[in-house]
Amino acid sequence: MSSSRVLNSLFFPESVALVGVSANPAGWGGTSFLQRLKKRGYSGRLYPVNPKATEVEGLKCYPDVKSIPEPPDHVIIATAAPAVPQILRDCIVGNVKNVHIFSSGFSETGEEEGKKLDEEITAIIKNSDLRVVGPNCMGIWVPASKLCAWGAEPKGLGSLAFVSQSGGHGEYISELGQSLGIYFSKIISFGNARGLQAVDFLEYLETDPDTKMIACYFEGMKDGNRITQLIKRINRTKPVFVWKGGLTPSGAQAVSSHTGSLAGEERIWKAFYAQTGAVPVGSLEEVIDTAMVFQYLKPTAGRRTLLMGGGGGNSVALADICGREGLEVPRITDQTRQELNKFIRLAGNSTRNPLDIWSVQEDPDAFKKAFDLTLADPNIDVAIMEKQIMWDDDDQEHMERHRKSDGFMVEYCHHNASGKPIVIAVTAMANMEGPASYRARLLTRYATSGIPTYSTTVNAARALSRFVAYHEFQAKAKQANQAM
Amino acid sequence: MSSSRVLNSLFFPESVALVGVSANPAGWGGTSFLQRLKKRGYSGRLYPVNPKATEVEGLKCYPDVKSIPEPPDHVIIATAAPAVPQILRDCIVGNVKNVHIFSSGFSETGEEEGKKLDEEITAIIKNSDLRVVGPNCMGIWVPASKLCAWGAEPKGLGSLAFVSQSGGHGEYISELGQSLGIYFSKIISFGNARGLQAVDFLEYLETDPDTKMIACYFEGMKDGNRITQLIKRINRTKPVFVWKGGLTPSGAQAVSSHTGSLAGEERIWKAFYAQTGAVPVGSLEEVIDTAMVFQYLKPTAGRRTLLMGGGGGNSVALADICGREGLEVPRITDQTRQELNKFIRLAGNSTRNPLDIWSVQEDPDAFKKAFDLTLADPNIDVAIMEKQIMWDDDDQEHMERHRKSDGFMVEYCHHNASGKPIVIAVTAMANMEGPASYRARLLTRYATSGIPTYSTTVNAARALSRFVAYHEFQAKAKQANQAM
Repeated sequence: MSSSRVLNSLFFPESVALVGVSANPAGWGGTSFLQRLKKRGYSGRLYPVNPKATEVEGLKCYPDVKSIPEPPDHVIIATAAPAVPQILRDCIVGNVKNVHIFSSGFSETGEEEGKKLDEEITAIIKNSDLRVVGPNCMGIWVPASKLCAWGAEPKGLGSLAFVSQSGGHGEYISELGQSLGIYFSKIISFGNARGLQAVDFLEYLETDPDTKMIACYFEGMKDGNRITQLIKRINRTKPVFVWKGGLTPSGAQAVSSHTGSLAGEERIWKAFYAQTGAVPVGSLEEVIDTAMVFQYLKPTAGRRTLLMGGGGGNSVALADICGREGLEVPRITDQTRQELNKFIRLAGNSTRNPLDIWSVQEDPDAFKKAFDLTLADPNIDVAIMEKQIMWDDDDQEHMERHRKSDGFMVEYCHHNASGKPIVIAVTAMANMEGPASYRARLLTRYATSGIPTYSTTVNAARALSRFVAYHEFQAKAKQANQAM
Repeated sequence: MSSSRVLNSLFFPESVALVGVSANPAGWGGTSFLQRLKKRGYSGRLYPVNPKATEVEGLKCYPDVKSIPEPPDHVIIATAAPAVPQILRDCIVGNVKNVHIFSSGFSETGEEEGKKLDEEITAIIKNSDLRVVGPNCMGIWVPASKLCAWGAEPKGLGSLAFVSQSGGHGEYISELGQSLGIYFSKIISFGNARGLQAVDFLEYLETDPDTKMIACYFEGMKDGNRITQLIKRINRTKPVFVWKGGLTPSGAQAVSSHTGSLAGEERIWKAFYAQTGAVPVGSLEEVIDTAMVFQYLKPTAGRRTLLMGGGGGNSVALADICGREGLEVPRITDQTRQELNKFIRLAGNSTRNPLDIWSVQEDPDAFKKAFDLTLADPNIDVAIMEKQIMWDDDDQEHMERHRKSDGFMVEYCHHNASGKPIVIAVTAMANMEGPASYRARLLTRYATSGIPTYSTTVNAARALSRFVAYHEFQAKAKQANQAM
């Protein structure tokens, strides 16, 4: 087994022990982990540990880790913090290799007791062979091994890995990603990082055949140079999306209450992005937004964007959004405009970019013809289609037109003759129940059919711009290498 | 009548003529205007004009404006562009004072014919006493006079005026604002601005007793110095929110296709905001977001913000959002923390700011006590509560808890003992139908009950920050005046 594969047994354990389960089925922590592993079809051997119980959830219960008849591949500790040092010592005696400490109450509390416990477990871990995830984290979520004791129910196998100190982020993204058709190879929540570090997980993911994209949420960072070099290298073949929490002074202060990490300075992180070419993201939505473009679009380093929305003032807004997000909104050629002007009347429409062609919106053939013509324009590299959901619930005719145009968009994106990347923004007023529900269904429908789809045009432009910037960076890096 | 009241008959006309109505009830433009004026209860006299019809919508039809038995207070022109010059001449002969040119097809087309027509009508208007709104615009929307021939059905009288070259923006905001409990005094869409200018409308609104807040969407700006001085003056007593479209080069290019205006440069607009203290906004959502804080909150110039969300990683994100939006996230005093720590356990919670108090979330009394304590903290000026809507539709118990907490929030905000401003962010995954619908209902419920409520924490922080900045600017300006 290559050294980078040493974590295989952490992600694909043949046996899992749960320390801190309670005989009470409504117990939180360890008990709920055990229940979910069973419910979600984990097929390895399960060992509940509780000195006060003989059976939990129909399984024989052990008084401590040492008493389990085999060294379990993966131990989850979910007791109160003060019990953790002794359990770690038991794990060492019991020849355990992989430990996830779910328990919190360490240095992140900012209190003396927690800090002392943190020092104690850090010393134990350092002087052992234990591979420890945590403490103060949700641990590991792997659909392929059904090691999914938390987060959403795994619904498919995918190629995105998410590495995060925060467990809440892991839970949220498991739900969000899957609902939009972005499935995961692994989600890793490693909290205060007293054992395994981001770099350990990244080295594993670099050669992990199941992982094609990697997203990271960092609060602090140990060993900055090493991780920068590593991400730069991985990013060449597997795009790495990095969200740094705590970039503002307020955020940095919140970081210290959360995982007790020291947040780096903004300028250090700017240098990190510039050196590595990693894709900067700023929220979990942005991670999934970005994964969609990388998963579905053909690479392009061109940022000349065709905008198709509607409305004069709105066209200005769309162009401003693209301008701010670093996309270009070029003029389309006179030749294309002349072709468009043959069947689109001038008054109230615009056959410039952004395209505003209300007069043909009820006519799918004319609409398709207009799209084909403008997408084929030599000044255009990529396109954003904005679809505004806004109607009177009582107006069935209007809704019927909406439905027809919905179907047209899916068809069009999948059979777009130009082959140029298209993303869709489906916008609606968030406080209107009809449009908000309709948008929810449409977002899900489009995204799960393989079209990068966004709930705002800002999000669409941002994801597309980052995709283009990634390919631009890699193309330049390749050129520079060849020149050497 | 004072000179600033000269536009009264434009907004409150006793008679309206509609030129360009069709005998076909499905006709667009003039005909639909006429239908809506009738449907929405406009009680003045209506005069359809069409040389080819004798009756439209049950009303006697006139061949031209001159033939109407009285000079109508307000004429709406909705014919094709080439007919407009002659109709304007008829209006002059017929002693008409106020004209709205809905028709498009002028310089905004970028074509020779449109430019020539534009020059022609500009000359006619200049050499007359006509007060012209447009061309290429939706005109005037006034709930108090039922002059609402377009946009949403008027649902109430309010104090926000919206002045916009774009008509699409006017329509959208009439819907959005009213749905969130923000009602309007006037919405003005003035398109290519060949007659009345922004400055004319602003002078009217300055002394308009129905208007307490003014929002403007500008593409170009004539007479920059005059408008800057005017907005600076108005802004002292009536907050002015200004959205400048076309600040990016791409947006500026789109502006020229839209209203044919010349978009100014970014640095000129920076100076404008700095001099006037006008509240910068960047979308229609932001106009309504901003109106909510001004409408509902007590003035404050303090930006030390208490954040109440949940989750460790999420707390970092909340703090970063506030940091970016210019709010401070201070430490709360040791004394408050000690009080909180008496009933909130350390592990898994944070009694720092952002407050993360999962362990008491099911206990309304403890929750209220925690809020009361932290809001009263001397380091805190304002608060943002984030409410994440995320659940399993099948989990009725969870939904019941949601509902209880929803009610608690409304109660709490309205009877908050500290009196410090609170805004709420109700967040949900836009692609999940259950949460998206639930959020829509909650947003509407909170906002219409008088609590500034937002669909993202970014929006909440932005609106709050702008509110604080406005009051800070005015406080400084007052000090500077007193010192002189």
